Amino acid sequence: MVTASAPGKLYLFGEHAVVYGEPAVACAIDRRATVTVEARDDDHLRVHAEDLTLDGFAVEYGRDPGDADVDVPEGLVEAATGYVDAAVEQAREAADAPDAGFEVTIESDIPLGAGLSSSASVTVASIFAATRELGTELTPAEVAERAFQVEYDVQDGNASRTDTFCSATGGAVRVEGEDRRSLDAPSLPFVVGFDGGAGDTGALVEQVRDLGNEYGFAADTVEVIGDLARRGEDILLDGDVAELGRLMNFNHGLLSALGVSSRSLDAMAWAARDAGAHGAKLTGAGGGGCIVALDPGEETRTALQYSPDCEEAFRAELDTEGVRVE
Amino acid sequence: MVTASAPGKLYLFGEHAVVYGEPAVACAIDRRATVTVEARDDDHLRVHAEDLTLDGFAVEYGRDPGDADVDVPEGLVEAATGYVDAAVEQAREAADAPDAGFEVTIESDIPLGAGLSSSASVTVASIFAATRELGTELTPAEVAERAFQVEYDVQDGNASRTDTFCSATGGAVRVEGEDRRSLDAPSLPFVVGFDGGAGDTGALVEQVRDLGNEYGFAADTVEVIGDLARRGEDILLDGDVAELGRLMNFNHGLLSALGVSSRSLDAMAWAARDAGAHGAKLTGAGGGGCIVALDPGEETRTALQYSPDCEEAFRAELDTEGVRVE
Repeated sequence: MVTASAPGKLYLFGEHAVVYGEPAVACAIDRRATVTVEARDDDHLRVHAEDLTLDGFAVEYGRDPGDADVDVPEGLVEAATGYVDAAVEQAREAADAPDAGFEVTIESDIPLGAGLSSSASVTVASIFAATRELGTELTPAEVAERAFQVEYDVQDGNASRTDTFCSATGGAVRVEGEDRRSLDAPSLPFVVGFDGGAGDTGALVEQVRDLGNEYGFAADTVEVIGDLARRGEDILLDGDVAELGRLMNFNHGLLSALGVSSRSLDAMAWAARDAGAHGAKLTGAGGGGCIVALDPGEETRTALQYSPDCEEAFRAELDTEGVRVE
Repeated sequence: MVTASAPGKLYLFGEHAVVYGEPAVACAIDRRATVTVEARDDDHLRVHAEDLTLDGFAVEYGRDPGDADVDVPEGLVEAATGYVDAAVEQAREAADAPDAGFEVTIESDIPLGAGLSSSASVTVASIFAATRELGTELTPAEVAERAFQVEYDVQDGNASRTDTFCSATGGAVRVEGEDRRSLDAPSLPFVVGFDGGAGDTGALVEQVRDLGNEYGFAADTVEVIGDLARRGEDILLDGDVAELGRLMNFNHGLLSALGVSSRSLDAMAWAARDAGAHGAKLTGAGGGGCIVALDPGEETRTALQYSPDCEEAFRAELDTEGVRVE
């Protein structure tokens, strides 16, 4: 039996623009998905996902998830099993054990579908744990690559290498086109506010693409986000939290212009700023989900907890470990 | 005795960027300042400003407003008398009547200090009425030029020719550098929401200037607003209200990026969008004040009236007359 965990992540700068080859800066945070894997005698997979939904459920099935006989909405089954199923397939391939079966237990303290890469974290931890259980040790880079293949397949091609790379390696990561590198970033006083909702990432990416095709000024806005992310990277390395906050506010406005903010995301960003945060922005695809703010004190988290637009607020630190055995 | 009135205005596109020579589109609206002027036997000025403040007040003084002996805050006196005093001086000069004195009565249904050019409207109407009272007929362009001089002096150089030109001529106006021209725009279903506050225009302009000097991406954002305004002008002439709304939303996001929105402006913009408005944006310098939305129905105005962030909401049409004798 092997237990592994992998961190969630947030975008400090550059989401959406990164799709067009602009640079972006992502940070792994100390909220983790934990996956325990135990080999079975047969080739079946049993997934116990205690914390993936409000109620928790278990599902057991053979090689075809379509066989699964459970009394929960199909989308929920897919969410819980799609990633794990594909992750296990990657582990079987990496360990050259095509008939391996597993008991898999998933726990996560990363809000689901909130733009904090919960699916990438589950996938990374699952591949890492399952390969170890089969006696194969993959490097974080190898886990990241296989986890990306899982996300690519499960999300019909709409996957970001950033999520899986950041979750596997931890730390702050700079992404530009095919290039991903770790940044020597200081710890940052993140505060995350989650509105309880989620945007449709595919639809939001499509919407930004349509805007850019229709309007030259929208395509230029994407480039402006890239330039802001370049500057943001320098400031991150300097560790100037106040200036980082100003750039986060600017980035949030540019994302709003592209139509990917929402009433609750804007309201949470203002609640954070009014509470004294250095800055605040939506993080991820938008349309709902999370904002990230910078505040070394307690005020922003408290303000968010009392905001009617915020369902959950928590402080977070930069995670520097990435995927690990527990 | 002559009574004249002049309309307020709002920016459909391009505020702030217009300071740097980018094009902007402004629209006169059917909310007016009305000024009644009656010649006196002496060279004194008596200003009765019923609706300029919540309480109303009157003030009488000689050629130096510093002589005024009234029991109201000084800033209020300056607000009410500074523009009228300088406007009367322009009228004296235009009519070659340096010793003319007047009774001046001001009424206005334009919210004060809300970014709807209430001061320009009062100034334009005052110059127009006072010159007529002295037997001199100025063209709207001449009134606009003299009104700009008033705003330039009273606001210590921080004046926009757009406000006074738009108030004098009415209609939709395209501004770019020194060029101002009327556009053949259709009527538009404006809805204005006012949060009861006001930003500090000078400070906000300075803040955008500092951002542009510090960050190349901020200077680029100003150019993006200019490009958006160019496209917006074409769409305005086409009369496509839905597309105008989308561009207003985009413009609002860019202004937010430049740091000139506020919690209440964002909240009013979302209240309008959620009510079905085609789009919504802050109008004017920002930091507080007004949003403008497009909605041919009643939903947006109703939603704004019930929004805790909105103090006053009203529908408005494009004004096509400019300054006129009542």
